[in-house]
Amino acid sequence: MRINLISDTVTVPTPQMLKAMFEANVGDDVFKKDESVNHLERKVAEMFGKEAALFFPSGTMANQTAIKLHTNPGDQVICDKDAHIYNYEGGGVSFNSGVSCKLIDGHRGMFTAAQAKAAINPPDFYHSPLTALIALENTANRGGGACWDFSEIEKIHTVARENDLGFHLDGARLWNALVEKGETPEQYGKLFDTISVCLSKGLGCPVGSVLIADEETIHKALRIRKILGGGMRQAGYLAAAGTYALDHHMKRLAEDHDKAKEIGKTLEQLTFIKNVEPIDTNIIIFYLQDDIDEQGFLSKLEALGIDLIGMGSGKLRIVTHLDYTTKMHQEFLKVIQNVL
Amino acid sequence: MRINLISDTVTVPTPQMLKAMFEANVGDDVFKKDESVNHLERKVAEMFGKEAALFFPSGTMANQTAIKLHTNPGDQVICDKDAHIYNYEGGGVSFNSGVSCKLIDGHRGMFTAAQAKAAINPPDFYHSPLTALIALENTANRGGGACWDFSEIEKIHTVARENDLGFHLDGARLWNALVEKGETPEQYGKLFDTISVCLSKGLGCPVGSVLIADEETIHKALRIRKILGGGMRQAGYLAAAGTYALDHHMKRLAEDHDKAKEIGKTLEQLTFIKNVEPIDTNIIIFYLQDDIDEQGFLSKLEALGIDLIGMGSGKLRIVTHLDYTTKMHQEFLKVIQNVL
Amino acid sequence: MRINLISDTVTVPTPQMLKAMFEANVGDDVFKKDESVNHLERKVAEMFGKEAALFFPSGTMANQTAIKLHTNPGDQVICDKDAHIYNYEGGGVSFNSGVSCKLIDGHRGMFTAAQAKAAINPPDFYHSPLTALIALENTANRGGGACWDFSEIEKIHTVARENDLGFHLDGARLWNALVEKGETPEQYGKLFDTISVCLSKGLGCPVGSVLIADEETIHKALRIRKILGGGMRQAGYLAAAGTYALDHHMKRLAEDHDKAKEIGKTLEQLTFIKNVEPIDTNIIIFYLQDDIDEQGFLSKLEALGIDLIGMGSGKLRIVTHLDYTTKMHQEFLKVIQNVL
Amino acid sequence: MRINLISDTVTVPTPQMLKAMFEANVGDDVFKKDESVNHLERKVAEMFGKEAALFFPSGTMANQTAIKLHTNPGDQVICDKDAHIYNYEGGGVSFNSGVSCKLIDGHRGMFTAAQAKAAINPPDFYHSPLTALIALENTANRGGGACWDFSEIEKIHTVARENDLGFHLDGARLWNALVEKGETPEQYGKLFDTISVCLSKGLGCPVGSVLIADEETIHKALRIRKILGGGMRQAGYLAAAGTYALDHHMKRLAEDHDKAKEIGKTLEQLTFIKNVEPIDTNIIIFYLQDDIDEQGFLSKLEALGIDLIGMGSGKLRIVTHLDYTTKMHQEFLKVIQNVL
Repeated sequence: MRINLISDTVTVPTPQMLKAMFEANVGDDVFKKDESVNHLERKVAEMFGKEAALFFPSGTMANQTAIKLHTNPGDQVICDKDAHIYNYEGGGVSFNSGVSCKLIDGHRGMFTAAQAKAAINPPDFYHSPLTALIALENTANRGGGACWDFSEIEKIHTVARENDLGFHLDGARLWNALVEKGETPEQYGKLFDTISVCLSKGLGCPVGSVLIADEETIHKALRIRKILGGGMRQAGYLAAAGTYALDHHMKRLAEDHDKAKEIGKTLEQLTFIKNVEPIDTNIIIFYLQDDIDEQGFLSKLEALGIDLIGMGSGKLRIVTHLDYTTKMHQEFLKVIQNVL
Repeated sequence: MRINLISDTVTVPTPQMLKAMFEANVGDDVFKKDESVNHLERKVAEMFGKEAALFFPSGTMANQTAIKLHTNPGDQVICDKDAHIYNYEGGGVSFNSGVSCKLIDGHRGMFTAAQAKAAINPPDFYHSPLTALIALENTANRGGGACWDFSEIEKIHTVARENDLGFHLDGARLWNALVEKGETPEQYGKLFDTISVCLSKGLGCPVGSVLIADEETIHKALRIRKILGGGMRQAGYLAAAGTYALDHHMKRLAEDHDKAKEIGKTLEQLTFIKNVEPIDTNIIIFYLQDDIDEQGFLSKLEALGIDLIGMGSGKLRIVTHLDYTTKMHQEFLKVIQNVL
Repeated sequence: MRINLISDTVTVPTPQMLKAMFEANVGDDVFKKDESVNHLERKVAEMFGKEAALFFPSGTMANQTAIKLHTNPGDQVICDKDAHIYNYEGGGVSFNSGVSCKLIDGHRGMFTAAQAKAAINPPDFYHSPLTALIALENTANRGGGACWDFSEIEKIHTVARENDLGFHLDGARLWNALVEKGETPEQYGKLFDTISVCLSKGLGCPVGSVLIADEETIHKALRIRKILGGGMRQAGYLAAAGTYALDHHMKRLAEDHDKAKEIGKTLEQLTFIKNVEPIDTNIIIFYLQDDIDEQGFLSKLEALGIDLIGMGSGKLRIVTHLDYTTKMHQEFLKVIQNVL
Repeated sequence: MRINLISDTVTVPTPQMLKAMFEANVGDDVFKKDESVNHLERKVAEMFGKEAALFFPSGTMANQTAIKLHTNPGDQVICDKDAHIYNYEGGGVSFNSGVSCKLIDGHRGMFTAAQAKAAINPPDFYHSPLTALIALENTANRGGGACWDFSEIEKIHTVARENDLGFHLDGARLWNALVEKGETPEQYGKLFDTISVCLSKGLGCPVGSVLIADEETIHKALRIRKILGGGMRQAGYLAAAGTYALDHHMKRLAEDHDKAKEIGKTLEQLTFIKNVEPIDTNIIIFYLQDDIDEQGFLSKLEALGIDLIGMGSGKLRIVTHLDYTTKMHQEFLKVIQNVL
């Protein structure tokens, strides 16, 4: 039994999900004739109280498309210094959209409305890039799966509206925030112009993300998706997994959160661990004591059947997920206490 | 029984292909841990006698990535005026790579080495874009599935080498050319720096294309694929279909060609048809007489259960494929003779 | 006495123009505090009956800025296959704006409204680039200084309006057309959204072009000019030459045209010349007989004090201009008859 | 007598510089036939001990061209969070080159070799942008004209070399640093791949910057300059001013520095001023007490004939320059003490 805690993207479909995929009714989605894709898009749009949605092969493409739709080359996107769109999409914002990021020095990947407001460049001072978009990420990945305070999001929404800026949510792990905070998709649909959500993380699907917006925006997104090469043919096999997951894998995210918090409590008591960051959802970020060699530590765990990922300088990350069973959890809690 | 002759992309997997897909051994391909994807990539690379290959969600993304790898913004790509990369990838060459196309006025989507040579801009005359790449398409889609003369490709290869230009093959339907002309993938692998091949056209897979090149190029392609958003997680379900198709659906392409040629012969005898272009593979392009209304003609066929696509001004296209059965073929040949 | 007939860009200021430059009242144009620049911009805007204008260091930058203002990356610009923006701006349309050109196979660099209409891609067919702009060039440089028929421009204007397309004029040598055809700037100002005009060709200034449009467009152009690096400080020295030239060098363009036509008549009678294209303004394009070596011919002329430019394959270009005096003209007509 | 302390770009040529300009021997620089431009380029290249140089209409275009030459779209440039290329070039790095900035949280616009090293992304981790370039700015404009410690630059040079990164210097005000620190251009030429220097700031020219590099790089820069629209015709009038300034206006920069330091001493004694940042060269940054209204303060000064610029939140900037005479200096020192 190997225990993979590297990411919630490593899951494989459950037998029931695989059955749903296998039985999917498919067609050519490039001509929008794939019933399973169309069904998923309608379902997600309705969940968020929005007009339309579009299926993508990855969350990166969904985010990149949204950013493209909100900006012109040379414009600037306000986001946290730890934002996925700035750090982990390969420089896509400048490659695909020709835009730069105005980085906010936030807390755990999140920032305040006051910080957002201060980051807006004066529109008429053409020496500075033109600010076009505010982008949030919930939960904040590099912030340790942190959940935003919804009232702060409402305030940032006001800043965006008052300054004619687009408002995008990178909701790769929004499902975790919804479950943890007892929030609804509609709440988010009301505030954001565009929202990307991921099916292949906590929900356990093999492939896919969905971009949600109004109809005109999604119509334009179709063209961008084509240009980026995201138009797939019989994509319904993937979409069917998404529909299944939305129906069956949402509530159980709470289990991932419970396990993560239990792991956190255990880690806090270990002398070789310097610090554990607050745990909101399914991500645990912790730091080894300075005298512990990160690579050596990871190798020892690997030899004991446990795969973790290091973020450099003794900073480590654990992510719980659908394939991390209760049995693995008990094993992990035991092993981690005796690893050194 | 509906007969869909719009494109060879409309096929759905056979039961055996579907079985292969859902028994696939998958993993997280973003970390290159999906065995089914890795297997397909190795298999295709070996077929072409190349070092490496990379799976993509679409042929557009495979082509766009190749073009990006060969060029810098401002550069120019030599291709036929009917090339898919110029006409049907949404303006991607300028969007994704910032390059323009130097269009050759070729014949049936194909051109000569002399034309290619004449299209190269003088490298030191910086008023003109810098020529960086020659791109061919075999079979040529808008050329009516036309197959290149391999000896002409060899001559163009020499022009590319003598002028330090990249050499890319859009092989979306290369399989059709190989079967029709009795050529081998190795022949192509020897001449081209990069080749894209499609699994979801004649081969009948639901999704996917593969880019083939040397190892260093594929290493760089991985980064571009990530930036464009083509990094998928458990993509092995799709890749497994590809492996199955390469093993089982290649030779049968000859059947599609035979049917296409039979259709052509029938069309040539119909008085309401002005002209039928030469038929090399599975695409038939023909023209209605000037007094026949294209839209009305298509509507009549549709009412009779037959879906075709018009290219404007009375130019129509038929594509035969895996799901176009012999029974459908007989029905179509009967219907088309009596439609007007 | 060397006679330079390579281009009308080779002129140096007359003593009076130099005096105007020398005495110019200048300031920091990046802050829009240069009186000489502001004066020129107002003057040119008024000439064309437009709201505003902006000074640029080159015609390329003025054109590129206009194209950027009319398009989004991935869009397509309709222009003649011989257009300067496609052939001689270094691939700038794809580099700076990420757009491609839909090339019309016109006549002498000019095309018809019917051709323009046929070149528009269907807006909802997202496989094709989205058509955004029609760009004309008057006079047409590679068309041999050809002047458009104004009534055809009016018809193309209607096509642009009916299809919600931008309408740009590359008027690098518009002055020559105005003088030759007895047209006015206002006529052009009424039809085009953006017009670029050049000061450093027929008008004889050292540096500079002007982009003319409505106020909102010019406001945005200021930002693009800054990004491209076209914001100059005390640019008034250059602008003052422009103002002088508009007042003193316009009418005399007719002299350049007369000389060009006289040269044409002489060339037509020479047996070593195969063909002379029609001459509308100050550009003569002619072809040597097939048995004459182009490079040898140019070398002989050079030895006789005459600089010409070859366009390859025996195609040669002569451009008359302000510094091509009557004395030089007589000398050239004499030399050319005896060169071989 | 108005006293303009907004920027050192507001200067107008001295009579002697103007004389040098209008006696310049010019030609068509697009064909590299302008003797005055060629002379300046050779002169600057030699000063820095480099092979070649290229004249540009602005420092922004010289920097943007250098960044383009060092990077591919998607790459990342390491620079200080206060860098001109990030803050004041209109978003050009993402518009022109499709790259993003990795911002270092430095001190007064400068950073350490250790910070530079830590900012490099792992080349094989393709989720992050590929680091391609380290860019320094000396003096650092937003750092208050701060001069780098040359030994730290040497260490950063080592980091760049060890990691195969390009090394660019934005030397818009390098002349000030050279004079202040007693350094030579050769010292910089040895370390940096590309250096941009400005003629229109402390040196007092109307227009122009120069990019310095090896011959191959400058050859490529010519193409980029053309694409951006920076190819000017008889630019020699501007270049001649540059040559004059390099011969006559370099040493006197010390006067600007002395005046700036005297202003600093005076400001430090004023009770309405909270803080004055260290003054290395010709830029003074200071802060009003919290209860002083910035706009009101600037208006009062303006009414007294003095133009300053605010950077927001009570932060103000003064720049001394060639046109800020000793008489103006005495007047300013008197006025500033009595303004409130």
